Amino acid sequence: MPRYALKIEYDGRPFAGWQAQADQPSVQETVETALAKLDPGFADGARIAAAGRTDAGVHATGQVAHADLLRDWDTFRLAEALNFHLKPAPVAVLEAAPVEEDFHARFSATERLYMFRLVARRAPLTHGRGRVWQVLNPLNAELMREGAAHLIGQHDFTTFRSSICQAKSPLKSLDEIRIEEIEIPHGREYRFFLRARSFLHNQVRSIVGTLERVGAGSWSPDRVATSLAARDRAECGPVCPPHGLYLTGVGYPRDPFAQTD
Amino acid sequence: MPRYALKIEYDGRPFAGWQAQADQPSVQETVETALAKLDPGFADGARIAAAGRTDAGVHATGQVAHADLLRDWDTFRLAEALNFHLKPAPVAVLEAAPVEEDFHARFSATERLYMFRLVARRAPLTHGRGRVWQVLNPLNAELMREGAAHLIGQHDFTTFRSSICQAKSPLKSLDEIRIEEIEIPHGREYRFFLRARSFLHNQVRSIVGTLERVGAGSWSPDRVATSLAARDRAECGPVCPPHGLYLTGVGYPRDPFAQTD
Repeated sequence: MPRYALKIEYDGRPFAGWQAQADQPSVQETVETALAKLDPGFADGARIAAAGRTDAGVHATGQVAHADLLRDWDTFRLAEALNFHLKPAPVAVLEAAPVEEDFHARFSATERLYMFRLVARRAPLTHGRGRVWQVLNPLNAELMREGAAHLIGQHDFTTFRSSICQAKSPLKSLDEIRIEEIEIPHGREYRFFLRARSFLHNQVRSIVGTLERVGAGSWSPDRVATSLAARDRAECGPVCPPHGLYLTGVGYPRDPFAQTD
Repeated sequence: MPRYALKIEYDGRPFAGWQAQADQPSVQETVETALAKLDPGFADGARIAAAGRTDAGVHATGQVAHADLLRDWDTFRLAEALNFHLKPAPVAVLEAAPVEEDFHARFSATERLYMFRLVARRAPLTHGRGRVWQVLNPLNAELMREGAAHLIGQHDFTTFRSSICQAKSPLKSLDEIRIEEIEIPHGREYRFFLRARSFLHNQVRSIVGTLERVGAGSWSPDRVATSLAARDRAECGPVCPPHGLYLTGVGYPRDPFAQTD
């Protein structure tokens, strides 16, 4: 049975998250319903697996999932057919690629990339609503970078982990937190780029929410280190809302999409 | 009666355009309704005037309007109060500034700036829906710049003017068309920046629609010159949809917002 990797983009606003749930719209079910129009296996209830099970309201520009189809497909036609059946949902297949039988979108992944968009300005957002987290006062990016530096490397991230996180261990390696500051009309946007093999549940939102407190001057950058060392959820800053978060890419030992151009 | 200039941002999607119309949601009426909560004059039917009467679906990041209020306002508090009453409409007052009695948002304006966002990629848009115009195939930006160069300067723009345009003369000076090309995941975005004292009805959309034909290779850049010289609406390329268009700024002999910082 040929297996295909799908690179998927979505606007998370109308969904209760990636994962299929009874009586709730999910990205997974939306993609599976489109697959069912093309493939009898999916009409019979086959499922797809994705690299990142994003929460309600979280967006993606580079989610990766895999699907086993009953017949071989030209990858361009497969993406086009899926996009046709996905309409009008704000979900698109950017690319499809054949992969080996042992490729697993989630378990083969060696890297996840997330971006978080945070805008600081007084006036309410009109164009970025539901796509960025807004705060009212400007932040100090340099202080946020200082705070973020304490989180790089392998740590017990219990402080920055949801209490309902199902990961076996709170030990994770955070490879990068890069913070870009962008001038926007009447305000500033801060983009946080995070890279790790994998993340704990709510880890990005816990980190960004904490760094915002540092940028606002309420927390010293060193308090991030103290809070991490405490390994205590109660020491975390406020968890920020989901709608500024984007899954932007997934890394694999061999990029399944590299060979398709 | 103190007069105030308001810098206004909006998402054009839910509106039938700037201008108030019976039984249709308009940006103008939305702002006037918010003003009516603060000012008895607006509760009694006073109106505001804007620099650009944008069409249905057209956005703004720098629209300017003026309003006569019955009493003096601190400009920060005026903007905050209006934003409070504008919720949940996707309209925000970015700034308010006191102006002289003879300032008129429309008639005093000496420059209008528009941006048009055009994305070329196969997969349907998920995040930019209603905010950019999408075409499927990549365009040649250099050819579009060559075509655009023919339009710079003072010309009779009859070809690039809606048949219902109410301007007395089709003679306009187009000061700038700058085209930026931006790499986006699995596609390309082209941003057109246009600057003129004033524009004819549908002039920007007629120009961008025509330049897209040049970028796609269907029109030679020189055909833009021929089509302009024909002064014939039938010689225009296809008028592009409104939802990629943004009014980004309005210029005045003295910037009303410069003094408020």
